[in-house]
Amino acid sequence: MKYARFRDPAGAVRRGSVEDGQVQFANDTYDLSDDAIDVLPPCEPSKIVCIGRNYADHAAEMGSDLPDRPMLFLKPPNTVASHGDTITVPAGKERIDHEAEIGVVIGEQCRHVSEAEAMDVVAGFTCVDDVSNRDDQQEERNWVRGKAFDGAAPLGPVLATPDEVPADATVQTRVNGDLRQDGSREQLIFSVPELIAEITTFLTLEPGDVIATGTPEGVGPLEDGDDVEIEVEGVGTLEHSVRKP
Amino acid sequence: MKYARFRDPAGAVRRGSVEDGQVQFANDTYDLSDDAIDVLPPCEPSKIVCIGRNYADHAAEMGSDLPDRPMLFLKPPNTVASHGDTITVPAGKERIDHEAEIGVVIGEQCRHVSEAEAMDVVAGFTCVDDVSNRDDQQEERNWVRGKAFDGAAPLGPVLATPDEVPADATVQTRVNGDLRQDGSREQLIFSVPELIAEITTFLTLEPGDVIATGTPEGVGPLEDGDDVEIEVEGVGTLEHSVRKP
Repeated sequence: MKYARFRDPAGAVRRGSVEDGQVQFANDTYDLSDDAIDVLPPCEPSKIVCIGRNYADHAAEMGSDLPDRPMLFLKPPNTVASHGDTITVPAGKERIDHEAEIGVVIGEQCRHVSEAEAMDVVAGFTCVDDVSNRDDQQEERNWVRGKAFDGAAPLGPVLATPDEVPADATVQTRVNGDLRQDGSREQLIFSVPELIAEITTFLTLEPGDVIATGTPEGVGPLEDGDDVEIEVEGVGTLEHSVRKP
Repeated sequence: MKYARFRDPAGAVRRGSVEDGQVQFANDTYDLSDDAIDVLPPCEPSKIVCIGRNYADHAAEMGSDLPDRPMLFLKPPNTVASHGDTITVPAGKERIDHEAEIGVVIGEQCRHVSEAEAMDVVAGFTCVDDVSNRDDQQEERNWVRGKAFDGAAPLGPVLATPDEVPADATVQTRVNGDLRQDGSREQLIFSVPELIAEITTFLTLEPGDVIATGTPEGVGPLEDGDDVEIEVEGVGTLEHSVRKP
């Protein structure tokens, strides 16, 4: 199953099931691309726990060693943006990059979750663009200016339950239609259950929280006016545009 | 004025005004130390934006250079703990430290705030213990295991409006009654208005968000059973205990 949150023409926020690009809530059905509705992020995270260097080829392109345990950083709720949004990135930066990622959406409050039981706390998957301001990321110890600016985490367009997303799901970025990243879930160094087990050793996850599982190689710069598509096989395609002041 | 959030004997969450250690809501008055009520954090942050190395003497004791702009890191909502709580810190760590800090509580949603107008978005001040797991902090690029574990940010006991807190307010830690940290707001390298202006260049602050302004010298280890007091002059004293498994 797939689910979308949206604001209906009367302004009410609804969560409907999605089939063939149409979202249904009660007696109402809309095309997801219908201008009469606003697609919202599929969940409302209290935090996004992000994984760095979780694909060997991306670590190599960034000149980084492989981590011996998951490398973590955080995106707070102000970073969340929706499918269809134009995100305004920080002004005057040389290099703002896309990073296509599989987002794991947590379904229940949990801590100290074993790998064996980790999938029980997963509501599903979504697409994430871990938009990154390299100018500042390279200069700061903790990536706050680099990763936590408003709009730095477009999420969506839907939540797909785990059965929808194959173990080797592709993870792609297209910018203005050109393929820029093309990875697969099976390349993850630390799997989804391993990440959940590790993170919940010290931190409580809440319903709607997101784990952004890392990005494959091919990250690259975004320019003013670019149209970005982040596609995760089994979820669909998250679209957003970029305004670079 | 001072305000406390608390759960009353019927279980309802209230926000009352505080005078002489008593909190009043409507017709009810309780002693803040009354076992019949639970003192809650004075605000519900969607994020805590923390400042590293904002006192020259603390930067020196950590062997760090002074930053040329505020050094930022994040604590998500799972870190929040209350006045009177016993926090259980991550298991098996050698060194868990206290860090007394002045917390700035934001009063309204804001972005692109000038230094001149920054105090207009401040609801008040509170005490923060930026509890830190040094074992992991020293080994990770972003301080997530080190700073974002459950209970890593006791807040309270009250919110004091800005007029209550002098420009040279003292910031102290006592552990089991012994003075460990003794700094002053006037030692801040980056002032509260400078911090708000810098942070809101790239990030929206929400009502209830907290800026933890950094800690003076004297950070040190906490052991199982320790009783910690964080006092900010004009706010009062935040108390918490430590369970170290």
